[in-house]
Amino acid sequence: MIRAIVCGAAGRMGGRIIAMIREADDFALVGAVEQPNSASIGQDAGEVAGIGKLGVPVVGDLGAVVSEGQVVIDFTAPQAALSHLAVAAREKVPVVVGTTGFSAADLSRIREHGSAVPCVLSPNMSIGVNLVFKVLAEVAAVLGEGYDIEIVETHHRLKKDAPSGTALKMAQVIAETLGRDLDRVGVYGRKGMVGARGKEEIAIHALRAGDVVGDHTVIFDGMGERIEVTHRAHSRDNFARGALRAARWVLGRPPGLYDMQDVLGLRERS
Amino acid sequence: MIRAIVCGAAGRMGGRIIAMIREADDFALVGAVEQPNSASIGQDAGEVAGIGKLGVPVVGDLGAVVSEGQVVIDFTAPQAALSHLAVAAREKVPVVVGTTGFSAADLSRIREHGSAVPCVLSPNMSIGVNLVFKVLAEVAAVLGEGYDIEIVETHHRLKKDAPSGTALKMAQVIAETLGRDLDRVGVYGRKGMVGARGKEEIAIHALRAGDVVGDHTVIFDGMGERIEVTHRAHSRDNFARGALRAARWVLGRPPGLYDMQDVLGLRERS
Amino acid sequence: MIRAIVCGAAGRMGGRIIAMIREADDFALVGAVEQPNSASIGQDAGEVAGIGKLGVPVVGDLGAVVSEGQVVIDFTAPQAALSHLAVAAREKVPVVVGTTGFSAADLSRIREHGSAVPCVLSPNMSIGVNLVFKVLAEVAAVLGEGYDIEIVETHHRLKKDAPSGTALKMAQVIAETLGRDLDRVGVYGRKGMVGARGKEEIAIHALRAGDVVGDHTVIFDGMGERIEVTHRAHSRDNFARGALRAARWVLGRPPGLYDMQDVLGLRERS
Amino acid sequence: MIRAIVCGAAGRMGGRIIAMIREADDFALVGAVEQPNSASIGQDAGEVAGIGKLGVPVVGDLGAVVSEGQVVIDFTAPQAALSHLAVAAREKVPVVVGTTGFSAADLSRIREHGSAVPCVLSPNMSIGVNLVFKVLAEVAAVLGEGYDIEIVETHHRLKKDAPSGTALKMAQVIAETLGRDLDRVGVYGRKGMVGARGKEEIAIHALRAGDVVGDHTVIFDGMGERIEVTHRAHSRDNFARGALRAARWVLGRPPGLYDMQDVLGLRERS
Repeated sequence: MIRAIVCGAAGRMGGRIIAMIREADDFALVGAVEQPNSASIGQDAGEVAGIGKLGVPVVGDLGAVVSEGQVVIDFTAPQAALSHLAVAAREKVPVVVGTTGFSAADLSRIREHGSAVPCVLSPNMSIGVNLVFKVLAEVAAVLGEGYDIEIVETHHRLKKDAPSGTALKMAQVIAETLGRDLDRVGVYGRKGMVGARGKEEIAIHALRAGDVVGDHTVIFDGMGERIEVTHRAHSRDNFARGALRAARWVLGRPPGLYDMQDVLGLRERS
Repeated sequence: MIRAIVCGAAGRMGGRIIAMIREADDFALVGAVEQPNSASIGQDAGEVAGIGKLGVPVVGDLGAVVSEGQVVIDFTAPQAALSHLAVAAREKVPVVVGTTGFSAADLSRIREHGSAVPCVLSPNMSIGVNLVFKVLAEVAAVLGEGYDIEIVETHHRLKKDAPSGTALKMAQVIAETLGRDLDRVGVYGRKGMVGARGKEEIAIHALRAGDVVGDHTVIFDGMGERIEVTHRAHSRDNFARGALRAARWVLGRPPGLYDMQDVLGLRERS
Repeated sequence: MIRAIVCGAAGRMGGRIIAMIREADDFALVGAVEQPNSASIGQDAGEVAGIGKLGVPVVGDLGAVVSEGQVVIDFTAPQAALSHLAVAAREKVPVVVGTTGFSAADLSRIREHGSAVPCVLSPNMSIGVNLVFKVLAEVAAVLGEGYDIEIVETHHRLKKDAPSGTALKMAQVIAETLGRDLDRVGVYGRKGMVGARGKEEIAIHALRAGDVVGDHTVIFDGMGERIEVTHRAHSRDNFARGALRAARWVLGRPPGLYDMQDVLGLRERS
Repeated sequence: MIRAIVCGAAGRMGGRIIAMIREADDFALVGAVEQPNSASIGQDAGEVAGIGKLGVPVVGDLGAVVSEGQVVIDFTAPQAALSHLAVAAREKVPVVVGTTGFSAADLSRIREHGSAVPCVLSPNMSIGVNLVFKVLAEVAAVLGEGYDIEIVETHHRLKKDAPSGTALKMAQVIAETLGRDLDRVGVYGRKGMVGARGKEEIAIHALRAGDVVGDHTVIFDGMGERIEVTHRAHSRDNFARGALRAARWVLGRPPGLYDMQDVLGLRERS
């Protein structure tokens, strides 16, 4: 059994991770951390997550429980995450960080902690999305020129930015593989007499509709055939599942900063 | 057996219609017409269409064969089509016109001929596309507000305009049903901090890829459910098939100008 | 404001309906009913539904609150639903019944109550699914013979029966429109040397995968073109939304038994 | 310019390859071979292919032209292909064989010729399909258990066998990766009370519809996310294009028997 501590236990992702830990055969929750002023302090972490009593109280300080754990999973905010990482590094407890929004300065501090403890850092823990990045690079490399690339993403109607960060990352991965500059070949809509398609265009179409969690399809279309690679997120559970996979993987690694490509064994060995 | 005359016999659509006439149980080709200076004059219409000898020579003048036919099918150019329509009207032979590019003046002349002879005129003879227009109006009317509408169309890389005329017509049909002004609610791409989706937006995304003949999907997405209506054209045969369906339908109709909504029985009776 | 009473308030559907009532501008919850021995009796209906206090206690008897309401919405079990219907009929309060599993004898009793009070009864309240039934009949009628019909449905891995009732109903609607006998033309899988496709076949393919709530696609494929009609349920909210739409519609109707085709205005007038 | 000889010049695939050779910048047609009793003998190969005069007559014997070529492309029948391979091997001209239907004995003779000359042999020359095989193995390896696998393929209504050979190969690739026995876990349709999905099932659904050239989609569905990999063949040109890619690749290789995985650089190096 892997003894896990969840930081951000009262948050949406924290709650899902706690629920998944209970369902998993190989994990046990041994600590749950929130901000010291959270209303959840002192409550049962399972009840906060809406899954019933687990016998683990929410505490306001990682330091109070870190020695119980084999791995810390953090879905909080940048400053809290940095402080949790410092505590874990001091105690040599491996960390999985799914928190987003770090500044460049934050990232260099994270990298420093990586010299003391193994740490997986990824803004998107989805196994499927990270796998798709790798597949897209491979497909683009083999097909090469001659296939038109169009990306279609759909997100819920409240999303404010377009295209999604994931769609842009997909386009970036393909552009790098094909030696193209996305700033030059990116297309984000077509209207009017646009003329024949430029051979190097990579188009991204952002659909906004209903309550879609997140769909992405990349089309490679040549004369006479088409390959499509699609990822659909139905719920946020796939992020929680990815976090557990990272937690399993990070145990026993040498100190260092890793990402999901490492966890999934997708990084090219040099 | 319906005795049909094809004008534009050496053209791409004319050839497909001649091929379909031979395959149909209820049609016989009795005349094939081309421009007087066409290299196909005097040749066998079946051989010109690449389907083997049919015993019907291509002639340069509809007047020479019109009395043999029960219906004239015209896929030519505006001036030729107008002249064919005049001949057919004089002889009281019904006409199906798939030719495109008529001016407003041309259309009023066509309407005049419609007082003498039944004539089906449609720039897009596809049964499926015309049926989809009707379905979209019905779906929009029932769902009403609360469902986000996004249209995705894909055409080959050489198409110069975007979105396709068919996609615009689909958007128009929906906008009219919902009492919206497409000029105001139409969206043709999203990039940057666009903010939450406007409730009345109708978005059209034009993909350009490979050799796709023409795909259209309309998405109606509400909270918790989605309806999608898709039309895919694999080949131009569906236009030829629509022309034959129009030819069957127009026989015995009273004089007048009709379109595919009439042929398919989709027009609302007032 | 429509004063609504929800029977089955502690159930999964009841909870979603209570949540949607709170979000709707034109509804107010005035009563919440459960079985007399339910642990929720006396608790606040909003808290039971997990959306916070609403000031409406759960009671064990519809009779105690029925006079407060303008409409009763019932998602319970057959015997409870029949007893609720009797109470509502006596008080002349219109009813929406989403409960399933009625016997033929139950249904004839429901019909009797329909002489006293307007009642909407539907085993599937989804607006989209009911609309799609109508669209499929129309598409099949216009396309007629010559288009191959294939249905693909996907549900979560725990679903025990196949194909889904909704897919079978879709096939039935199409078969009736085309004058085919589904028992004779239904195909549920293909393996081996099956030979060329029978022209009248209606095939249904049941995919079982992950946690998919329910997707259905019907394909009509002719030579050269294809129409696809898809319904996706992302969550159970679309059933709750359909129930509210039925509740709005049923107010002020003459006594009688209605279904979602009536609510959505899709029934052919004779 | 690569000087190419096409065997099976009057066949459907041969004609498409000849057309593509003319369009390619780096190929020249220097020989066209057919059976000695073919009506095309002595005619111009371009005219036989329907693309206009090329100045290359169809001959009845590869031996008469083999010394002109740098590569022989064979889409004929097993016995003819074996005899062409013998001629090419004797003259040390590399060969690309897209012919299908070889017996085990034929294959061992082909392997013998492979000691004298480089030869690419593949029953399906599609670049996309071969690439998808590789992608599926990789996706299955990374996702591992916990994702339900469902394959949907669509082919035209005249196809006699089901599922397609390509779909079976896809299932086989995945089964091997996951250490499953397809004979035991393969499912080809679901009807009735089938119970919850078996965790190891790999289901293949064969749709037969219209004139679809060949679509394949593989779904990997876990809780909360789904990956779909789709290949669509719009026309047979993608086989012809794959043959040219193989022809470019095979020039200058050491003698040996290769397949499309080699051509596309997808084979794992040991």
